[in-house]
Amino acid sequence: MSVKIAVLGYGVVGSGVVELFYKNKKSIEQHAGCEMDIKYIVDIRDFSDSPYKDKFTKNFDDVLNDPDVTVVAECMGGTEPAFTFLKAALEKGKSAATSNKELVAAKGDILLAAANANNCNFFFEASVGGAIPIIRPLHRCLAANEITAAAGILNGTTNFILTKMYSDGMSFEAALKLAQELGYAEKDPTADVEGHDACRKICIISSLVFGKHVYPDSVYTKGISEIQLCDVAAADILGHSVKLIASVKKLEDGRILPAVMPMLVPHEDIMSGVSDVFNAVTVYADGIDKAMFYGRGAGKLPTASAVLGDVIEAAKHKVTVFSQTWESCSDNSFIAPVSELRAKWYFRVPDDCENLPEGTYTDENGSSFITKEILSFDEAQAKAKALNAMSCLPVL
Amino acid sequence: MSVKIAVLGYGVVGSGVVELFYKNKKSIEQHAGCEMDIKYIVDIRDFSDSPYKDKFTKNFDDVLNDPDVTVVAECMGGTEPAFTFLKAALEKGKSAATSNKELVAAKGDILLAAANANNCNFFFEASVGGAIPIIRPLHRCLAANEITAAAGILNGTTNFILTKMYSDGMSFEAALKLAQELGYAEKDPTADVEGHDACRKICIISSLVFGKHVYPDSVYTKGISEIQLCDVAAADILGHSVKLIASVKKLEDGRILPAVMPMLVPHEDIMSGVSDVFNAVTVYADGIDKAMFYGRGAGKLPTASAVLGDVIEAAKHKVTVFSQTWESCSDNSFIAPVSELRAKWYFRVPDDCENLPEGTYTDENGSSFITKEILSFDEAQAKAKALNAMSCLPVL
Repeated sequence: MSVKIAVLGYGVVGSGVVELFYKNKKSIEQHAGCEMDIKYIVDIRDFSDSPYKDKFTKNFDDVLNDPDVTVVAECMGGTEPAFTFLKAALEKGKSAATSNKELVAAKGDILLAAANANNCNFFFEASVGGAIPIIRPLHRCLAANEITAAAGILNGTTNFILTKMYSDGMSFEAALKLAQELGYAEKDPTADVEGHDACRKICIISSLVFGKHVYPDSVYTKGISEIQLCDVAAADILGHSVKLIASVKKLEDGRILPAVMPMLVPHEDIMSGVSDVFNAVTVYADGIDKAMFYGRGAGKLPTASAVLGDVIEAAKHKVTVFSQTWESCSDNSFIAPVSELRAKWYFRVPDDCENLPEGTYTDENGSSFITKEILSFDEAQAKAKALNAMSCLPVL
Repeated sequence: MSVKIAVLGYGVVGSGVVELFYKNKKSIEQHAGCEMDIKYIVDIRDFSDSPYKDKFTKNFDDVLNDPDVTVVAECMGGTEPAFTFLKAALEKGKSAATSNKELVAAKGDILLAAANANNCNFFFEASVGGAIPIIRPLHRCLAANEITAAAGILNGTTNFILTKMYSDGMSFEAALKLAQELGYAEKDPTADVEGHDACRKICIISSLVFGKHVYPDSVYTKGISEIQLCDVAAADILGHSVKLIASVKKLEDGRILPAVMPMLVPHEDIMSGVSDVFNAVTVYADGIDKAMFYGRGAGKLPTASAVLGDVIEAAKHKVTVFSQTWESCSDNSFIAPVSELRAKWYFRVPDDCENLPEGTYTDENGSSFITKEILSFDEAQAKAKALNAMSCLPVL
């Protein structure tokens, strides 16, 4: 039997899927245990010069109505028409693999329910951490663990900017401009810089780990646009790197606390060494203590690798993989507000402040220190106000 | 249907498997999609005080002859009787999960063939990198990639010793003594210190990735007992950490070059920050570029987590997973000798040496430098001899 695939969208990721598939077709088929081929590439644009021109169609119904096609690889991005297309495909029993974090974070529960109801699979390894295997390790390899928390550097653009601030002494603005010149940041960098992209990814991880859909608008999200070079430099002297951390933690009462915010990561933590556009996710659990997964979080072939890994899984699994699913959830009471976040905190305060703790570092930009005690988010905000702090960031 | 498990060996790992299983039984069953229980614990010792005393048997035939038992978790260690027991179990169609790297490196091909012939599975996630998911990510998540190389810190004992030399300025002997006091190193530390443990693990990775059984005696293996504190210190000044690296690389002609040896890892490489008893494996492939997997390489619950992850997979998979297998191989011509290894090299030479390159660091222990050019292993040995070098180590 030969498994027929349809690739939706022939942009960066979609063309990468086609390229990597034909490059490694023989070993991909060995891994899948069956013959495989791409039968359709769906894109409204014209690709009549492409070597794959015979596979192109502008009409998704060609895929939907072809019973030969059993796996759909969605690489269009955005919620529509991706959602409508995938829902229709799943309802026909065709499995789907997607790299579309916006879609999974907004509509994952509905698509998983459609897959479960129709004995097929909705896979989304590529939607978090690009090339990094994280979704499957979470629900399969770590299946014997109770996962208590996860924290990740899930946006390559902001990590590149913070790395340039740290290693080359660039200002935020200069580093952003360089990221744009190199194609790492969009012309409108809001989704990356303000943390919305990382937020979608921690929503997906949270939903998978804790079993209920976590929507982006219920997650406190703060980006890196207010981070000053002097904070990055002072944090380094205090033994920490500044990173945009997307995290989720299970509280003692069973609620979870997801958040996206710049945090200080101690140099002893392997995550502090994750630099440039690389991503990483650390998972904390009762059996393993902690494990970290590191790799390229974006890019043509890295993302294609993850999509194709899922396509191969879909070809192998004739029934739904129930360990990789979560419920819809209209009630958000299982999500704790950021005010309950507890951490040590970094403060930068005017250098005429009195009674600063031992280890305070002072330069022309003020006095920087990390608290010895653990404070809640609200306590830290109050302390920052009392001290006229210029900066106030939690420590991972 | 309830899946019945037998645990072989009630030492550190086996008791961890039982503990973690009953701690997380409910969520383990959710992940497996079926009820599960441990029916037997096989150990020749007496555990009549144990809360699980009704499950103990000294006779493996009780497991073998009980058709209820479909999954065997082997935590005895050593090749015998583990090999005889698992081969008999697989031939009866019972799947097996093991943490036993010695067994997998010596007899993996035979046990995989037995599993394939009897429509069951032989899983060994716990045999490499303890808690770290690496076996399943390699053959499943990265299935669309051509893997070109892998390099890992696969022995926690030696990494602890090297970390103590680096961060506390301890001599090798003092660090080894501390590792023994903390229970990280055996009374006879040879298998760890001389690289034999890491060798077994890179044999397993090499066999899985390249499809042919690689035996430990065909892999060049050098441990860390000759590493001097002054080399660790000089390497740091030259921007590198000294690590015991187990690696395998695919050469252009299709042969592979596995090796275990101390190497210098550049500080820019995330692997240089893997410290204490932690392990990590970096995988290089055409789709992902590179990805690293990091976590605890040993210990009761971390290893149990990996064994139970496999037990859950075995409960779910009623047929053989053919992507996770390799062939027996009597002909070693696919393995290149270490003389073909090519790298930049670190040398420490007497400080009266002439014509040393720019960037050479000199102290009372000699002059240390890293070559700009790439040399073969044989060329490096010749150069070391010509320079009367005290140390000669490759750079990763």
